Amino acid sequence: MDESDPWFEERQARTDSLDACLRRLVGACESLASERRELGARAGEAGAACAALSAADPHPPLSRALSHLADTHEKIEQLRIEQSNTDFYVLTEHIKDYLGLIGAIKDVFHERVKVFQNWQHAQMQLTKRRENKAKAELANRPDKAEQAATEIIEWESKVERGQQEFDTISRVIKKEVERWERERVGSLRATVARYLQEHMKHQAQAIRYWDAFLPEARAIK
Amino acid sequence: MDESDPWFEERQARTDSLDACLRRLVGACESLASERRELGARAGEAGAACAALSAADPHPPLSRALSHLADTHEKIEQLRIEQSNTDFYVLTEHIKDYLGLIGAIKDVFHERVKVFQNWQHAQMQLTKRRENKAKAELANRPDKAEQAATEIIEWESKVERGQQEFDTISRVIKKEVERWERERVGSLRATVARYLQEHMKHQAQAIRYWDAFLPEARAIK
Repeated sequence: MDESDPWFEERQARTDSLDACLRRLVGACESLASERRELGARAGEAGAACAALSAADPHPPLSRALSHLADTHEKIEQLRIEQSNTDFYVLTEHIKDYLGLIGAIKDVFHERVKVFQNWQHAQMQLTKRRENKAKAELANRPDKAEQAATEIIEWESKVERGQQEFDTISRVIKKEVERWERERVGSLRATVARYLQEHMKHQAQAIRYWDAFLPEARAIK
Repeated sequence: MDESDPWFEERQARTDSLDACLRRLVGACESLASERRELGARAGEAGAACAALSAADPHPPLSRALSHLADTHEKIEQLRIEQSNTDFYVLTEHIKDYLGLIGAIKDVFHERVKVFQNWQHAQMQLTKRRENKAKAELANRPDKAEQAATEIIEWESKVERGQQEFDTISRVIKKEVERWERERVGSLRATVARYLQEHMKHQAQAIRYWDAFLPEARAIK
C-alpha cells in the first residue's frame, strides 16, 4: 500500500530499525553470557590447578595460601556462573520479550495492510459495477443495468465496511502502540536497573572474595 | 643410580611434582587470560550494539541511557584487556620463570647423576685392574702385574676425583636449591600480592564505571 498516514510510515521504519538493533544486541548479550560462563569454567580450572599445586608444595605457608587461592577461584567460578545467568535471564530474556512485542507490532501492521487491500479491492469492484451500469444504460439493457445497480449497493456497503475496518484497526494500533511505547520505557528502566544491581552485587562480592584472600597472600612467610 | 641420599630422593620427587602442577597452572592461567580477553571483546560488541540501538531509539531518555551504556561497555572492554594483560604478564610470566628455574634444577640433578656414573665407572675400572694384577701375579707375569699396578694408581686417583666431584656437586646443589627454596617464597608472595592489587584495582574500577552509569539508568523517564 502507499502509506498516506505519516504516523504509520514513521512507526514502520522505527519498528524495523529497532527490530534489527535488538536482534544484534540479543546476539551480543548471548555471547557475553556464554563467554562469562567460559571464564567461570577457566577460573574453576585455575582453582583446581592451584589446589593440586598446594598439595605438591612442601612449604606450609605457601601450600596454605595456594589452597585458599584455590577456594577463592572456586567461589569466583560460582559468581561468574551467577553473573552469566543474570546476563542471560535478566537482560537477554527481557530483550527477547521486547523482540516478541516488536514482532506482534509488525504482525498488526501487516494485518492493517491486508484490511487496506480488502477495502481497496471493494473500491475497485464498486468502480467496475458503476462502469457496467453506465455501459448497460448506454446499450439500453435495463435488466443488466438493474443487476449492476443491485451489485453497486452491495459493494458500496462493502467499501463502507472496509473503510470502517481500516479506520478502526489504524486507531486501535495507534492507541496500543503508543501505550506500549510508554510502558516499554518503564519496563526497560526496571530491567536495566535490576541488571545493574545484580551486576554490582556480583562485582562487590568478587572484591570481597579477593579482599578475604589478601591477608593470606601477605602472610606467606 | 640408586639414590642413597634421602635429601636428593625427596627433592627429586618434589621437583617433578611441582613441575607437573606448575605446567598445569600455567595452562590454566593462559586460558583464563585469553578467555578474559574474549570477554572484553564481547563487552565491546555489546557496547557497539547498544550504540546502534541508541541511534535507533526515538525516545530521548532511553537513547541517552543506551548511549551511556555503550560508553560503559567500551570502558569495561578496555578494563578486561588490562586484566587479561595482568593475568598474563604478572602471573603467567612469573610461573614460567619458576618453571625455567625448576628446569634448571632438573638439569643439575641430571648433571649430578652423570658425575655419579663417571665415579662408578672409575670404581669398576679400578676393580678390574686389581683383578688383572692378581691374575698376573698368579700366572707369574711380573711385566703384566707391573702394568696393572700403574693402571691401578691411575684409576685410584680417578675414583678419588670422581668421589670429590660427586661430593662437591651434591653439596653445591643442596646449598643452591635451599637458597632458591627460601627465595621463591618471597618472590611468589610478591607476585601474588602484585597480582591481587592489580586485580582489585580493576574490579574497583569496574564498579566505579557501573556506579557512574547507575544514575543514568534511574533517570530514564
